[in-house]
Amino acid sequence: MKAAVLHAYDPALTRMSFVQYETVADPRIERPTDVIVRVGGAGVCRTDLHVIEGLWRGKVEIRLPYILGHENAGWVEAIGSGVTSVKVGDPVVCHPLVTSGHCLACRRGDDMRAVDSRFPGLNADGGYAEYLLTGERALVPLPRSLAPKDVAPYTDAGLTAYRAAKKASKHLLPGQRAVVIGAGGLGHIGIQVLAALTPADIIVIDRSDAALALAARYGAQHTVKAGDDAVECVLELTGGAGAEAVIDFVGEGRTVADGLAMTANGGVYYIVGYGGKLELPTIDMVTSEKTIVGNLVGTYAELVELMALADRGRVHLTTREYRLADADLALHDLHGGRVEGRAVLIP
Amino acid sequence: MKAAVLHAYDPALTRMSFVQYETVADPRIERPTDVIVRVGGAGVCRTDLHVIEGLWRGKVEIRLPYILGHENAGWVEAIGSGVTSVKVGDPVVCHPLVTSGHCLACRRGDDMRAVDSRFPGLNADGGYAEYLLTGERALVPLPRSLAPKDVAPYTDAGLTAYRAAKKASKHLLPGQRAVVIGAGGLGHIGIQVLAALTPADIIVIDRSDAALALAARYGAQHTVKAGDDAVECVLELTGGAGAEAVIDFVGEGRTVADGLAMTANGGVYYIVGYGGKLELPTIDMVTSEKTIVGNLVGTYAELVELMALADRGRVHLTTREYRLADADLALHDLHGGRVEGRAVLIP
Amino acid sequence: MKAAVLHAYDPALTRMSFVQYETVADPRIERPTDVIVRVGGAGVCRTDLHVIEGLWRGKVEIRLPYILGHENAGWVEAIGSGVTSVKVGDPVVCHPLVTSGHCLACRRGDDMRAVDSRFPGLNADGGYAEYLLTGERALVPLPRSLAPKDVAPYTDAGLTAYRAAKKASKHLLPGQRAVVIGAGGLGHIGIQVLAALTPADIIVIDRSDAALALAARYGAQHTVKAGDDAVECVLELTGGAGAEAVIDFVGEGRTVADGLAMTANGGVYYIVGYGGKLELPTIDMVTSEKTIVGNLVGTYAELVELMALADRGRVHLTTREYRLADADLALHDLHGGRVEGRAVLIP
Amino acid sequence: MKAAVLHAYDPALTRMSFVQYETVADPRIERPTDVIVRVGGAGVCRTDLHVIEGLWRGKVEIRLPYILGHENAGWVEAIGSGVTSVKVGDPVVCHPLVTSGHCLACRRGDDMRAVDSRFPGLNADGGYAEYLLTGERALVPLPRSLAPKDVAPYTDAGLTAYRAAKKASKHLLPGQRAVVIGAGGLGHIGIQVLAALTPADIIVIDRSDAALALAARYGAQHTVKAGDDAVECVLELTGGAGAEAVIDFVGEGRTVADGLAMTANGGVYYIVGYGGKLELPTIDMVTSEKTIVGNLVGTYAELVELMALADRGRVHLTTREYRLADADLALHDLHGGRVEGRAVLIP
Repeated sequence: MKAAVLHAYDPALTRMSFVQYETVADPRIERPTDVIVRVGGAGVCRTDLHVIEGLWRGKVEIRLPYILGHENAGWVEAIGSGVTSVKVGDPVVCHPLVTSGHCLACRRGDDMRAVDSRFPGLNADGGYAEYLLTGERALVPLPRSLAPKDVAPYTDAGLTAYRAAKKASKHLLPGQRAVVIGAGGLGHIGIQVLAALTPADIIVIDRSDAALALAARYGAQHTVKAGDDAVECVLELTGGAGAEAVIDFVGEGRTVADGLAMTANGGVYYIVGYGGKLELPTIDMVTSEKTIVGNLVGTYAELVELMALADRGRVHLTTREYRLADADLALHDLHGGRVEGRAVLIP
Repeated sequence: MKAAVLHAYDPALTRMSFVQYETVADPRIERPTDVIVRVGGAGVCRTDLHVIEGLWRGKVEIRLPYILGHENAGWVEAIGSGVTSVKVGDPVVCHPLVTSGHCLACRRGDDMRAVDSRFPGLNADGGYAEYLLTGERALVPLPRSLAPKDVAPYTDAGLTAYRAAKKASKHLLPGQRAVVIGAGGLGHIGIQVLAALTPADIIVIDRSDAALALAARYGAQHTVKAGDDAVECVLELTGGAGAEAVIDFVGEGRTVADGLAMTANGGVYYIVGYGGKLELPTIDMVTSEKTIVGNLVGTYAELVELMALADRGRVHLTTREYRLADADLALHDLHGGRVEGRAVLIP
Repeated sequence: MKAAVLHAYDPALTRMSFVQYETVADPRIERPTDVIVRVGGAGVCRTDLHVIEGLWRGKVEIRLPYILGHENAGWVEAIGSGVTSVKVGDPVVCHPLVTSGHCLACRRGDDMRAVDSRFPGLNADGGYAEYLLTGERALVPLPRSLAPKDVAPYTDAGLTAYRAAKKASKHLLPGQRAVVIGAGGLGHIGIQVLAALTPADIIVIDRSDAALALAARYGAQHTVKAGDDAVECVLELTGGAGAEAVIDFVGEGRTVADGLAMTANGGVYYIVGYGGKLELPTIDMVTSEKTIVGNLVGTYAELVELMALADRGRVHLTTREYRLADADLALHDLHGGRVEGRAVLIP
Repeated sequence: MKAAVLHAYDPALTRMSFVQYETVADPRIERPTDVIVRVGGAGVCRTDLHVIEGLWRGKVEIRLPYILGHENAGWVEAIGSGVTSVKVGDPVVCHPLVTSGHCLACRRGDDMRAVDSRFPGLNADGGYAEYLLTGERALVPLPRSLAPKDVAPYTDAGLTAYRAAKKASKHLLPGQRAVVIGAGGLGHIGIQVLAALTPADIIVIDRSDAALALAARYGAQHTVKAGDDAVECVLELTGGAGAEAVIDFVGEGRTVADGLAMTANGGVYYIVGYGGKLELPTIDMVTSEKTIVGNLVGTYAELVELMALADRGRVHLTTREYRLADADLALHDLHGGRVEGRAVLIP
């Protein structure tokens, strides 16, 4: 089959081509639970650039050459002998994590903390290819209203935003406030999920006027230009108290300190984006009784829930399509800031 | 009346006497909800030393001279015109915060975040005295089994430990683990509360062998000597996973980094003690999905719950009694590390 | 002052006049927490008809003659000596229950289960009058966007619907279904609250086509005409599984058995309306693991939350105004089915 | 292999032998996830008698002849080609439900509501045999401290009691009360679980003095002889308010009405036992805001949790052993009330 393959790291991201479009061996069914998916769409994610830079080398076991692509959707092409819940031809969206389902975390529905798992596109061949090897437990059947290429980016970017916003929805009451820091790829999903799941007033902070305009269309009651007075603006909008929930989709630079400063006493600061550092005296946590929550992707059931929202038109995703053969162009466009919404590779 | 009065700060805690035992004006009923309590016991707390050092000057409005003592219990001596829920002579334990009860936080049972409140012993005259001015909403009637002098320290030290352990009890399941860092004044209450409220295995870390021995009697399944290998010990005791809950009653020095390192992915690190600093990259919060929770005293209802545990003999408190006239001695003994358990001033 | 007074029960509701419009003594401030409100709007509720019929005689202590009216809003006219949270002239909406706030239930924010309380309009003089005696703890300050006469019916009808829908919102996920039985006075608020607080698909059942049309405008995805095949329709709409939440605003006749039959295994049936009977073998509860939840009005904090929704235009109330002098006409119109939306008495 | 086989229903339970001890075909591995367990212990349950009576005919698909026994534990004898989480020789306890794990309920950890499942001993051959065909997802590895024959009855009787008590533990606070109706096979486990998981005062009601004595040893603070004044006794023990949680392990005769009458306003009545009828006016549910919760067995994760309690000695089970060849005797002894604790068949 054809695939876009990563052969070498490029720490400065300066090479002409990051990945090579070439012919590789087809994936094969080996375990009874294996499934091969014909890829209908593969999201191009900033994490892919980080992988190319070599940032993930120490964190997961990666062996070059391999195929990138962890946001995948398509049609079932072949199934292992034990597979019963999907059949060849079914349209599916792929949860990024392939688990055996036997550890206690999985049995509690907490797949993301599976003891035993693979993450195609990160520590196994991914979806920048014609076919993807995944597992039965990773597959969410797609409703007819949704095409694989339109939903592929929900599996990681969308799911992460959904999970954080869903956590916040558990405690947000009418009259309370949610701040969203960063209205980009994840943030604009987060805003729509908050609007669908909670009655809270939504305040969105971003550097881009276009992003703020989009945020307002997606349900934000207030928009704030990122900058020196963002904390002050949020405090003013919240009567001096701060917001009961702050979801930080940036997580680097000043957003961490600012995000905590915008959080009301007794409120919750959700970290989704990363790159920065959390730094504060323990006494500040004690006197404020704030809570800080880390967020990572989401469970299989949460992906089903997000698909239900998409199916009902409660969340929308802006995508730009590239041919699989142009994967390298898509990565360079992403790196160069030339992609609005989410780049998706199609066959 | 007689009282132990703070006249001047002593940043290095080097003076012969910290407070003066002297005659002051009796408190008077002014508001319809005011209550005067004849003090039966007043806990001597490390926070009192911090107040004498001047550490709280910037945080709350303190005007010298004033009377220390925020852990109080006794008998109702006089009541305002609007008081209906207690009568003269009733034995009571005093929640440290006096609130009007009209803000939304109070209406939700979340007294600790009252918009309008006083904290006798911190920003108003406290209980190192024969009589204390407090308010109707601060008073918990005492069951017959409990004497004021024996329960006074529950109102702050005990309540703080109770609240943190209660939060942990909401998610701890059989087979899971709770680590208690620091088995001192607060920690030894925390251990007993965990044992009463949760089925979790309790692991206690302390520098003192005596404290660890006490911890084992109070319900700890495992004890670990504080030191370089504490994290390693906890990981070994938890099959490499870490503990689902870590309650840090120290919160300074290495306990913060160690406490987080002992916390399982998806687990919760509770900060109770303070003095140190939280410092970690946001990516660590993201990949681990840990939660960090700040804790501050507890609500009125939680003090009622703690008294219910004490009444049933599920928590015990070791106290050492001093006469009110010897308040200065008690403070010096505390400063000098010569008090086992909790010092309590009695009439 | 002028008031509409109930002098005698009328079990068959056949008298020419149910209440007399006459001059009575003005209410007076007696307790430090008393507040007199100049009534701006008083909702006319079916419960008032039940009181006139004598149905509430055994349930609460009612002494005739007295003034009906438990859904009240207006302006503060006079305050007791201890009142600090409102001042004369403030626009307020009155929570129906006047509590002292000292019992443990109140301290936990659970006002509705106060040990000590009054319910003006039921066991004390109500708001079918120029002035109403209530208490400080019953008063929610009104935002400028809301006039007393427009929000009075929220205090009982609206609050009850809000509380039940809020409970359901705690467990409803995207892709799940909520059934609302009865889209009348309470139900149409319930639909709007579900739409604001949950992502669930809303299915509404009613006998009236007009009510179903209104339900669709307020956010129902599906409407079902009440009748023999209602259960079948809901099962079909839910893939045979039933709905995860069923809120029954009728609670009599076949709705109880039907409501339970429409509830999914593991789901929750909320009873709000009453008059009927719950009758089922315990084995059916066991094999289905269903939950049945009773609902009664709501807390003070919940009324604040509902006002926040109204202030943001997320819930609307249809009212028809009558002069206080025409209270009897309003009651007869209600009894005769001639009131669309909610009748409200204005000065 | 040898097995005790049910050949015909016996509605009146009057036959000399209910089941025949005979030679049958060995079970065989067919699906990749199949597992054959060498039975070490098979609990003899009242449900088995109900099956013999024919009571379950309409509820599940049963085809005679078949082998009874749904409470099983033993050692892995053979595994299917896809099995990875257990290996031959492992000691295991068998969750009664064998699921494929692919439906949304399973993915949320809610196995009991699996769309696709078998229940050996009910709708497939069970464990009154030398070998049992089950599935990988049903197997909980046993800690070394626990022998199969000692834990077999936990899989149904114990698990059901655990799940109900765990639900109650989510809302029971110090000072609150839990009533256990029926201290028999399930109830005595429920009492121990409540004592391990909650700080509530435990009140136990039973007809048998021996059962009440055992209840007191297992952690009950109060015991009440079942009878006409049981409701009155509980109200007296709870200051007239009733208990915040009532777990009814009987669920027939007067216990249903009595159980609801003992439940505090705002409290929860848990139905575990069955046979009786729930009958009350909806107005009583409304004015009391009570909740009624049905309970059925428990999840895989809950069986793991219960094993953790057993492993730590927090719950104990009284068993009486019979040889598999004496299965019929065990069933007759159970029917005749001659089994104290739980009968278990051993090889």
